[in-house]
Amino acid sequence: MSNAVILLSGGLDSATTLAIARDQGHRTFALTVDYGQRHAAEIRAAERVARAAGVTEHRTITVDLRGLGGSALTDAIYVPKDRDETQMAAEIPVTYVPARNTVMLALALGYAEVRDAEDIYVGVNAVDYSGYPDCRPEFIAAFQAMAAVATKAGVESRPVRIHAPLIHLTKEQILREGLARGVDYGLTHSCYDPDAAGRACGRCDSCQIRLSAFARIGMADPAPYQTC
Amino acid sequence: MSNAVILLSGGLDSATTLAIARDQGHRTFALTVDYGQRHAAEIRAAERVARAAGVTEHRTITVDLRGLGGSALTDAIYVPKDRDETQMAAEIPVTYVPARNTVMLALALGYAEVRDAEDIYVGVNAVDYSGYPDCRPEFIAAFQAMAAVATKAGVESRPVRIHAPLIHLTKEQILREGLARGVDYGLTHSCYDPDAAGRACGRCDSCQIRLSAFARIGMADPAPYQTC
Repeated sequence: MSNAVILLSGGLDSATTLAIARDQGHRTFALTVDYGQRHAAEIRAAERVARAAGVTEHRTITVDLRGLGGSALTDAIYVPKDRDETQMAAEIPVTYVPARNTVMLALALGYAEVRDAEDIYVGVNAVDYSGYPDCRPEFIAAFQAMAAVATKAGVESRPVRIHAPLIHLTKEQILREGLARGVDYGLTHSCYDPDAAGRACGRCDSCQIRLSAFARIGMADPAPYQTC
Repeated sequence: MSNAVILLSGGLDSATTLAIARDQGHRTFALTVDYGQRHAAEIRAAERVARAAGVTEHRTITVDLRGLGGSALTDAIYVPKDRDETQMAAEIPVTYVPARNTVMLALALGYAEVRDAEDIYVGVNAVDYSGYPDCRPEFIAAFQAMAAVATKAGVESRPVRIHAPLIHLTKEQILREGLARGVDYGLTHSCYDPDAAGRACGRCDSCQIRLSAFARIGMADPAPYQTC
């Protein structure tokens, strides 16, 4: 039974990724990166998901990307609502966080070294979020190549493998993978603009993609919404 | 005049690197990463060096790598003292911080995106610190290749260049490069184990490498030491 690090945001994708890593027989070490996002709801969701999955360890590390500026998720910029799929796909979203996946995978690489893990799992998905440069397969491959020369393990010929098992899946396929493994999506949180109680807005890009996926598989989203 | 991000720890190497970046005609944006190291002396040194160099902006971003464990610099592990060069070169130092340069360059990449900088300067040095996997030229090259597919700028065919101008220099050569550009090394801090007043111990690996370089160029180190 080998150790694996899983980046766990508390969203639908990372909860599914954690279930897949467990299914591969790994001892699971979940890492949540609090990059100064304005909704603590996501962090609480990560704690719930980690507990439900029975991980060996769950760490939360803080890196305040607000110090760099430049994103709706971390600054007080307007979060776009009610956009259709064409509008979402037309441009890199304003909710883009500079170098977010690079920073998160770098921290996962450090955690993997400390826990002697040879596998890192990340729930990036190239289909629904095609606007994010760091959600594409070529980014994952380039990060793995960099990691192989960055670490003690790499130098000692045990380079880490970066797994992005959702990268080519649609949101419906992701839901089906998770449901087949018993993921409770009522514990997860995806919204860019939740209320103080942590309930999702139902209208931002992330909520719309999520709700539309649940609709397509004919299931009600068990997570709490403001409009409920 | 283009923008450049410089990783500035407050040590001898990064102060020299900042001077070199200025010399190349860049508008300079200095980034200090506070990764939870136990000596705040380094952060204060970075502020002094940035001010003296007249940077356009200096940001300090906090990422608490102590959350991951695994290093003398961030945990309360014994810092080795009075080792000779053979002992230093024989193994990866216990002061190794997991994935430190990967994390710092990832943050620099985010800052470069926000400030529209096409160049990142980092003061890594493969000669004196041959034990650190992420101080080698192959790591810098792999990071640059990864960055080219990680960012909006990369996607838009303006990939950042990662410069490590000290990578093949000895400490003496580094000192000469900095002195030729007017760097005041009395403002810098290199020690792994300073006292409460921020004075260097003079005996850890970092101090010994530094003192020996000053001795070889026949100059007294202007930084404060506990034994002075």
